[in-house]
Amino acid sequence: MNVNFINPFLESLLNVISTMANMKLNPGKPKIKTDNLAKGDVSGLIGMVGPQTKGSLSITFEQGLILEIMQNMLGENPGEINDEITDLVGEITNMVTGGAKNILGEKGYDFEMATPVVVAGLGHRISHQADGMKIIMPFTSPHGSAYIEICFEK
Amino acid sequence: MNVNFINPFLESLLNVISTMANMKLNPGKPKIKTDNLAKGDVSGLIGMVGPQTKGSLSITFEQGLILEIMQNMLGENPGEINDEITDLVGEITNMVTGGAKNILGEKGYDFEMATPVVVAGLGHRISHQADGMKIIMPFTSPHGSAYIEICFEK
Repeated sequence: MNVNFINPFLESLLNVISTMANMKLNPGKPKIKTDNLAKGDVSGLIGMVGPQTKGSLSITFEQGLILEIMQNMLGENPGEINDEITDLVGEITNMVTGGAKNILGEKGYDFEMATPVVVAGLGHRISHQADGMKIIMPFTSPHGSAYIEICFEK
Repeated sequence: MNVNFINPFLESLLNVISTMANMKLNPGKPKIKTDNLAKGDVSGLIGMVGPQTKGSLSITFEQGLILEIMQNMLGENPGEINDEITDLVGEITNMVTGGAKNILGEKGYDFEMATPVVVAGLGHRISHQADGMKIIMPFTSPHGSAYIEICFEK
């Protein structure tokens, strides 16, 4: 996978969370994922298909962080992962992938996005199955962590 | 979503499990999903992008069933959802979607598949976010249940 693919996704998440929830996430160092370390409580997943490559993206949130994002956006905190939260995670997944798609399109990397799927379950693990390098980008906040994972076929 | 989309996925899963694991799943009646009823322990998800539509598919297994499938295929049962199991679920997801893609392509419905992602976590719930009808197809067996869910944008 081209390392140019990393920053557009990273910056897109920071931008979306800042704009929607007026919240600053602290990005950690992106690294190559060698095992299924990232655990979280709710994840948005989306497939990407382009002429040069195809792959998958996931954005995983710990419950405390996504509840705080909802609180900041709407002034209400459901206290658990409900349908409003899964819809929000689907929306964030679409916006982050769309933002990265625009930046990458300008650089000549085109892809189409499938529609997002959201998984809710405390402490679930994500395993991208494309036959290529898997990159994980950690983000921290006082309310919990988030992780973007992307994987494109060689 | 066109109802012609249902049977190719249903038959493809029956065919894959029968061929790989010499096991017969009993298909229940496909229905329109109105809430997040399907729960499972390991799910394969894949995005689909075509000129007419785009969408997402998930195949969710209860732990007992996927362990029995592994047992039938390889003669060994890891007793829990490990990396071999998640790889197997990714493989099944690819094969089922690829089988349905071939059938639907002959009928003039073309789409490209993204790469699969597997989620492992006891009792997780899946929520397809495309703005279209969500179809759930239940399958039962003496070892547990499985569910295919597909959703295509209008």
